[in-house]
Amino acid sequence: MISAAIQRVLAEKSGSFLIPASKIAIVEEDNPLYHAFLILTKVKYAKILVLNKQGQITGLLSLAMITDKMLDLDGISVKPLNKYQVKDVMETDFVSINFTEKDIETQLHLLVDNNFLPVVDDQGGFQGMITRREWFKAFNYLARTFDDHYVTVDKKQVLKLEAEN
Amino acid sequence: MISAAIQRVLAEKSGSFLIPASKIAIVEEDNPLYHAFLILTKVKYAKILVLNKQGQITGLLSLAMITDKMLDLDGISVKPLNKYQVKDVMETDFVSINFTEKDIETQLHLLVDNNFLPVVDDQGGFQGMITRREWFKAFNYLARTFDDHYVTVDKKQVLKLEAEN
Repeated sequence: MISAAIQRVLAEKSGSFLIPASKIAIVEEDNPLYHAFLILTKVKYAKILVLNKQGQITGLLSLAMITDKMLDLDGISVKPLNKYQVKDVMETDFVSINFTEKDIETQLHLLVDNNFLPVVDDQGGFQGMITRREWFKAFNYLARTFDDHYVTVDKKQVLKLEAEN
Repeated sequence: MISAAIQRVLAEKSGSFLIPASKIAIVEEDNPLYHAFLILTKVKYAKILVLNKQGQITGLLSLAMITDKMLDLDGISVKPLNKYQVKDVMETDFVSINFTEKDIETQLHLLVDNNFLPVVDDQGGFQGMITRREWFKAFNYLARTFDDHYVTVDKKQVLKLEAEN
């Protein structure tokens, strides 16, 4: 169980964790790799979200997934960029969380191994993402303001005092 | 000022924050882009550290910095990969922290805008890196174990009790 005091301070900030879908660049799963190569070169995301025609997240794509397809026996070639589509190279094994998921503990746990978490509604529609960056802002807030909210007493000292009295 | 109680719990874990240089793939600043393209495609880091011949960190390199150099008026070309070196495209404006820097508050602040922090010794020699990932493990530990270490009392309730008595 997560500390209730920590949870309460983090909850003050958790409303700002979600970056809305409208602010996030995406690619579509049937875009040619050529298009995705240009987008990822310009937006500079480490990974971009891939959507299908229904607006559902179907994968994640990095430049390395594209450039890996450019390697052949003769070296590096641009030909695969017109030959393949995003869905041919994207990663489909990824974690997402539900829009209604307010559980801070789950997010905290999943962000150890994921730089961001895509957020979806009940129909699987893309709603936005939660990033480690926004969480770091909240941790800074927590560490700086915790003592304004709470008096903390070391349990070891409590036990010592009890033993002495 | 950071909360002393939070600092104390995080400090228990901060010894494990540094990933040593020996475990981190790097490129050299005079490597051809061709070489760096292959390395970044295979190691899958979002950014790789660039070292000079003296083992000092001189820049950071992402695949997007390389692929941006591949764009020309006619489209995408592999020719620049043999023509340019890492130092021609790398980012040189980056933050690093000193090996002896134990200040948790500084790290916490810098990690809002940086996915990792390169760590150097007094001579600028590369010692390793501190990542958001290791920090997230520590936050999980903090949130789960804080109540084992401390009794917390809400200051608002303290004030209310004082007013009532």
